[in-house]
Amino acid sequence: MAKNNDKKNDAITSMDEDFAKWYTDICKKAELVEYTSVKGCMVIRPYGYAIWENIQRILDGMFKELGHENVCMPMFIPESLLQKEKDHVEGFAPEVAWVTHGGNEKLEDRLCVRPTSETLFCEHYANIVHSYRDLPKLYNQWVSVVRWEKTTRPFLRSREFLWQEGHTIHETAEEAQQETERMLECYAEFCEKYLAMPVVKGRKTDSDKFAGAVATYAIEALMHDGKALQAGTSHYFGDGFAKAFDIQFTNRENKPQYPHQTSWGMTTRLIGAIIMTHGDDNGLVLPPAVAPVQTVIVPVAQHKEGVLEKAAELFSLLKNAGVRVKLDDSDNSAGWKFAEYEMRGVPVRIEIGPRDIENGQCMIALRYNGEKFPAPLETITDTVLDLLNNKIPHGMYDKALENRKNKTYKCRTPQEIIQQLQEKGDGFVEAMWCGSEECEDKIKELTGVGSRCIPFEQEHIADTCVCCGKPAKCMVLWGKAY
Amino acid sequence: MAKNNDKKNDAITSMDEDFAKWYTDICKKAELVEYTSVKGCMVIRPYGYAIWENIQRILDGMFKELGHENVCMPMFIPESLLQKEKDHVEGFAPEVAWVTHGGNEKLEDRLCVRPTSETLFCEHYANIVHSYRDLPKLYNQWVSVVRWEKTTRPFLRSREFLWQEGHTIHETAEEAQQETERMLECYAEFCEKYLAMPVVKGRKTDSDKFAGAVATYAIEALMHDGKALQAGTSHYFGDGFAKAFDIQFTNRENKPQYPHQTSWGMTTRLIGAIIMTHGDDNGLVLPPAVAPVQTVIVPVAQHKEGVLEKAAELFSLLKNAGVRVKLDDSDNSAGWKFAEYEMRGVPVRIEIGPRDIENGQCMIALRYNGEKFPAPLETITDTVLDLLNNKIPHGMYDKALENRKNKTYKCRTPQEIIQQLQEKGDGFVEAMWCGSEECEDKIKELTGVGSRCIPFEQEHIADTCVCCGKPAKCMVLWGKAY
Repeated sequence: MAKNNDKKNDAITSMDEDFAKWYTDICKKAELVEYTSVKGCMVIRPYGYAIWENIQRILDGMFKELGHENVCMPMFIPESLLQKEKDHVEGFAPEVAWVTHGGNEKLEDRLCVRPTSETLFCEHYANIVHSYRDLPKLYNQWVSVVRWEKTTRPFLRSREFLWQEGHTIHETAEEAQQETERMLECYAEFCEKYLAMPVVKGRKTDSDKFAGAVATYAIEALMHDGKALQAGTSHYFGDGFAKAFDIQFTNRENKPQYPHQTSWGMTTRLIGAIIMTHGDDNGLVLPPAVAPVQTVIVPVAQHKEGVLEKAAELFSLLKNAGVRVKLDDSDNSAGWKFAEYEMRGVPVRIEIGPRDIENGQCMIALRYNGEKFPAPLETITDTVLDLLNNKIPHGMYDKALENRKNKTYKCRTPQEIIQQLQEKGDGFVEAMWCGSEECEDKIKELTGVGSRCIPFEQEHIADTCVCCGKPAKCMVLWGKAY
Repeated sequence: MAKNNDKKNDAITSMDEDFAKWYTDICKKAELVEYTSVKGCMVIRPYGYAIWENIQRILDGMFKELGHENVCMPMFIPESLLQKEKDHVEGFAPEVAWVTHGGNEKLEDRLCVRPTSETLFCEHYANIVHSYRDLPKLYNQWVSVVRWEKTTRPFLRSREFLWQEGHTIHETAEEAQQETERMLECYAEFCEKYLAMPVVKGRKTDSDKFAGAVATYAIEALMHDGKALQAGTSHYFGDGFAKAFDIQFTNRENKPQYPHQTSWGMTTRLIGAIIMTHGDDNGLVLPPAVAPVQTVIVPVAQHKEGVLEKAAELFSLLKNAGVRVKLDDSDNSAGWKFAEYEMRGVPVRIEIGPRDIENGQCMIALRYNGEKFPAPLETITDTVLDLLNNKIPHGMYDKALENRKNKTYKCRTPQEIIQQLQEKGDGFVEAMWCGSEECEDKIKELTGVGSRCIPFEQEHIADTCVCCGKPAKCMVLWGKAY
């Protein structure tokens, strides 16, 4: 049995040797992205974009199922509009791109390219929300945003990235709070079910909140190298933005009232998360739900009579069953094809040659664990669908969860944190916290790990703060982050 | 029989009274768009965006069927890159938005927000195209672009608009030429089949070519007010861009060679075209293929026993058959609902009340021609599907074609053009042309109509140019344009 950790692809640096290079090698060799002459802005190539299209399709369906509607706001925000909410402008102004000229004319009010669109949605809501009958508005948009980052990496941190941003507005605080939590659940379900990526749901500490939010919630995933990646965030705004933008509606008692708002977003970062959660030294490993090609058919000894015909028949069968299937009958060797589709992370490979046909079977190889086994042709559609919908996503999820468990350390002192990280490598640290920003900063300084979130699922690890020894308020998940 | 030209909606200015106001009234009242504080940039609201999503879904499917793949290029183009192709930069530089600062730092090379992405695709192709084996690349992207227009109107001319831009690169000139024509055909098919909008296919005269193109092809539609609207364009570039960007590949003879390129695009203008092709004094009239709601069910006397149950049953039936159906069981009066969904252009309205149920039928009203008739409940799904897929789109198409025919004038002299336009109102003029830009300009000056395109389907109207009297080269379609 060929194991997926037998390294076959020399074009990719080994993960253990240099994780960062392994990552960019995969981005390039699997043709997900290409650099451009604008630093930090990339071309998302067809194979990478097809992953994003699958993410979009599934997420968009989930949003609409929950009653959300898509809209499209302008990409420009006048400086005067951005400045209306104090915390918000402080958080974003230092990292926006400024448009100062339209054609040959200098603009009076310069425009920033949206880093996020709260201010635009607020301006719009002020125009269209008048009565409680106009509420809630459950809006979302799929656009790109720009943040002028200093250091950039494909998918993980780029100056322009694609995302969806949900913006909702409600009659009551309670409703808005529920929406914030509902969308975090939606994100967690998406990651776990469709990306086979286990996540920790939690609340961000105050120092890590979104600029202008009352509370920020996030899902955190652990990557292969033991670093955390924030995979999605959901913010509760209270009525702060409404007050800053003077959005008022007439409530059921016929009185003017400020509405309550939320926003939530997921980005092309998810593609980076997929790479670093599931990938291995032979390349990408894609969850079937978002794989551009779910199954590749590789004919063996394809010049022999009947092989290509049978392969084409298989192709039609699977295609008609709704599988995203590819038949590679090119002149490249079977060995080359194996390595190529492994590198591209195709979940299922089907090999079919003269002897298989004689025996009424084909060989199936699974990308995520290297397993290889014969399967009868008669029931091949059911077999493949079951692999794609059940066995593979569950197997990938379990594997990733196992990895996270092995790299989650419960610690009671800063020394324990340092020791665990040194012995076992980077990972999640679970430790108690008194709630003070001082301790948060100090832990970071002493151990290198920062607070990722306050998990919804709490555990009692000790009575006292890992840092100051005063009574603990909650358990915090700590880690290094992308 | 209620006719659609009985004006029922006072919120909308009558078309004859003020066509421009009629248009913006529909945009606002049907909640397609809302203005923002950035001039020329609009919010596309849920109802408008849902139309665009339907356009996208259908067009994207057609592109993929033809072998195209989606990618995503950055939104920024460095000034130095924009300048590589001389004609291209001349055409676009005067109307681009310039980013001069990232965060607090001034950029060395300022960036323009893409007005179109030829230069970015060229830079990318130079990186990834090496051999004839890498060709063709059939790429497309769905993004927004920015052109700093002086006068703006929702959908028709905005500073930011949504579009798709196809960019392909080929081994031979012939292949690229074929692609250009193939995509024009694709656009024409889309407009005629899905938007019920007749179009004239043709080539632009040289004075009207895209900046940097060898040849530009377009489809032209005639609006209600007799003005022309360019609904899509397809450009053949030859190897001009390849030379400017130094894109070379090793050909089958193992020699370096310049590839040939195309680009083609359709935009949110199409929504403006739908409004002005099909709309009437009661509001929008949407082609079923892109209507967010294809059928609305309005219960009559809904407090009576059994009415809402039957309406809900109808709703489920149609929904399961794939119809985008809405049941309005709100407290608003039936009359209010009728006017509301007419204004929003819902193609089919179903009314169902106690008497209808007794008779095993419902009433159907068609938006596009005001027709109203009873239909048996037993076969309602088939009836509605047939209306949506056949009768309505064909009826709408025929009506629009009839309008175009009535407003197309064959002319032999400038005086005839002036006279026809005066007598019958604005429209298409078919007249012969010698091929000189001078005559093109002079006709525009004398009559007010410019050349729209040289139609593929030529007609012999005279032997001589409508302007100078010299031998004619071809028939040109003239008109005033949006």
